[in-house]
Amino acid sequence: MASIFTKIINGDIPCYKIAEDADNFAFLDINPNAKGHTLCVPKKEVDKLLDLDGEAYMKLMAFSRKVGKAIEASVPCKRVGMTVIGLEVPHVHVHLIPLHSMKNATFQHKESLSAEEFEAVAQKIREALK
Amino acid sequence: MASIFTKIINGDIPCYKIAEDADNFAFLDINPNAKGHTLCVPKKEVDKLLDLDGEAYMKLMAFSRKVGKAIEASVPCKRVGMTVIGLEVPHVHVHLIPLHSMKNATFQHKESLSAEEFEAVAQKIREALK
Repeated sequence: MASIFTKIINGDIPCYKIAEDADNFAFLDINPNAKGHTLCVPKKEVDKLLDLDGEAYMKLMAFSRKVGKAIEASVPCKRVGMTVIGLEVPHVHVHLIPLHSMKNATFQHKESLSAEEFEAVAQKIREALK
Repeated sequence: MASIFTKIINGDIPCYKIAEDADNFAFLDINPNAKGHTLCVPKKEVDKLLDLDGEAYMKLMAFSRKVGKAIEASVPCKRVGMTVIGLEVPHVHVHLIPLHSMKNATFQHKESLSAEEFEAVAQKIREALK
């Protein structure tokens, strides 16, 4: 069965899309640690980061750098953190998180955003990617 | 002033060393989220991950993949997580953390190891890198 991320990539579940290339897809985390929290996901469904082949891994990391720099340029924060855990959804995803304090990195504090706020921050990051 | 990680890389502060190449250095985190928690650090002292130039970033990520796979092969865990935060030490460091549960990813639970336990897990990871 397709993972929830594959359904998002295929357009079967809506998302606040940030970017896409041949191999990877980025969209806002709907349960964010901070405003602008973004997920970068390889289109090929692989469970564990370190099970990606070398080329797919490097492409994902290059894509995440590009998206991360756009977040850092458009979302006020001290820096953008990067985290890969993967204990819940068995489809590799890189968390890019605008960090204001350690609280944003622990996955225990979540922020509530309205649909308008999600769309506004997505728009800002997309603009910074241009 | 040299960062604490530069002092470790230069041998001025001792560490449980895991690996080294021309550009990067890996050693055990002395205050680990889980046994086998390792830091991968570029030798060049840069504060933020996304301020590394593209080549240095990609070399660090390739190095971290290699070390991460050795941890996954030698330290019992569900998978190895990867986290970059950097709010405390202003010198880029990739955390590679053997994950048993979400607890190991939050940076709020720490494990105490004896010097013998640190050395034993470092030795196992070094063996897996060969």
